[in-house]
Amino acid sequence: MRIDIITVLPEILESPFSHSIIKRAQEKGLAEIHLHNLRDYSEDKHRRVDDYSFGKGAGMVMAIQPIEKAIETLKAQREYDEIIFTTPDGKLFDQREANSLSLYENIIILCGHYKGIDQRIRDTYVTKEISVGDYVLTGGELAAAIITDSVVRLIPGVLSDETSALTDSFQDYLLSPPIYTRPAEYKGMKVPEILLSGNDQLVDDWKHEQAVERTKKLRPDLYKKYLGE
Amino acid sequence: MRIDIITVLPEILESPFSHSIIKRAQEKGLAEIHLHNLRDYSEDKHRRVDDYSFGKGAGMVMAIQPIEKAIETLKAQREYDEIIFTTPDGKLFDQREANSLSLYENIIILCGHYKGIDQRIRDTYVTKEISVGDYVLTGGELAAAIITDSVVRLIPGVLSDETSALTDSFQDYLLSPPIYTRPAEYKGMKVPEILLSGNDQLVDDWKHEQAVERTKKLRPDLYKKYLGE
Repeated sequence: MRIDIITVLPEILESPFSHSIIKRAQEKGLAEIHLHNLRDYSEDKHRRVDDYSFGKGAGMVMAIQPIEKAIETLKAQREYDEIIFTTPDGKLFDQREANSLSLYENIIILCGHYKGIDQRIRDTYVTKEISVGDYVLTGGELAAAIITDSVVRLIPGVLSDETSALTDSFQDYLLSPPIYTRPAEYKGMKVPEILLSGNDQLVDDWKHEQAVERTKKLRPDLYKKYLGE
Repeated sequence: MRIDIITVLPEILESPFSHSIIKRAQEKGLAEIHLHNLRDYSEDKHRRVDDYSFGKGAGMVMAIQPIEKAIETLKAQREYDEIIFTTPDGKLFDQREANSLSLYENIIILCGHYKGIDQRIRDTYVTKEISVGDYVLTGGELAAAIITDSVVRLIPGVLSDETSALTDSFQDYLLSPPIYTRPAEYKGMKVPEILLSGNDQLVDDWKHEQAVERTKKLRPDLYKKYLGE
């Protein structure tokens, strides 16, 4: 899978993409992540990418020309499954969306910055608008990092069996059960006895029960989906 | 405001915190962000911070000892308003939560990794569990970056008037209206005429109307909150 990220601040994304799972996925040849500096596509002599908004209002707006050129340049090289724009008014990103995106071959993620991008880009070029949550970030870069991380780890072969994504939260609309590791007792804090019983069937039942209870209590909305309501 | 982040992979967070708004906030002395490598607090001779989970199951679990020591070391130095753990089964983070956190003086953010942390840490030390969205990430580092970014930009003085947070999405449960910048026409794509009218009142009315329409169409859940339902 190839992910092209268009941004005014590629340097923000350097460290998240050069460590951990994302790094390994790239080394294994399972994912290619390319950062593109929007300024490189500006035809302005000062490499400007933004301008004042029409109709008074605070903040700068990302202009059409550099974005159009960046997207057209990439599209001339290969076909893209989606051109994603990260924006707080996009569709809320969830694990289901991460699963679908992980099946694609090539995607572009366009990061908003300043007050946003010229609406005409959204109307003409963007095929999917995604929000990672109901909060405002300085720019779309961290949202792009979130999308990339959650999608890349789902590509077959990226995670080892040990860290399998199959037992993660959300894959079956249930939160994970509580987990414990050694020591069995630490400063008076004990691990639930059942986990030390050695009876796999009892442990599995307990874990499932805990997952259901936690979901019911913490996320009634997910619990309804789990029940198929 | 001071934010202490405890993580097994501090290097992931280096670039997001050394650019843009977060960098400026630190330079202005309005925010202090400290990254702590959890391994520095491990009493294991190999600086291990994880161990196998009790009861069979895939994945490693972050052990109590290093986390306890990291938190106790920090708490001995100052009082903390919250000890936050980033986890997919936490309370969904939103702009309202960002607003509250921005009023605090000192917070700790503990990043989960591997399959999670020993439940006893959550029961005993963590005061708030936050999820940035219904998706699974490789670790809590990107979630910590999201929380930090969204909170720091709300601290008075961090943003200039130009980029004021007051006109952002969510502050009044309304999405932003569409925005446009020059040129007024680009390859046949035109800016709505009203924005070129020069009549501030008409422009303001149009923007408000567009914000309401977009919210109604794209996010009926937010629209209900806007109406006070």
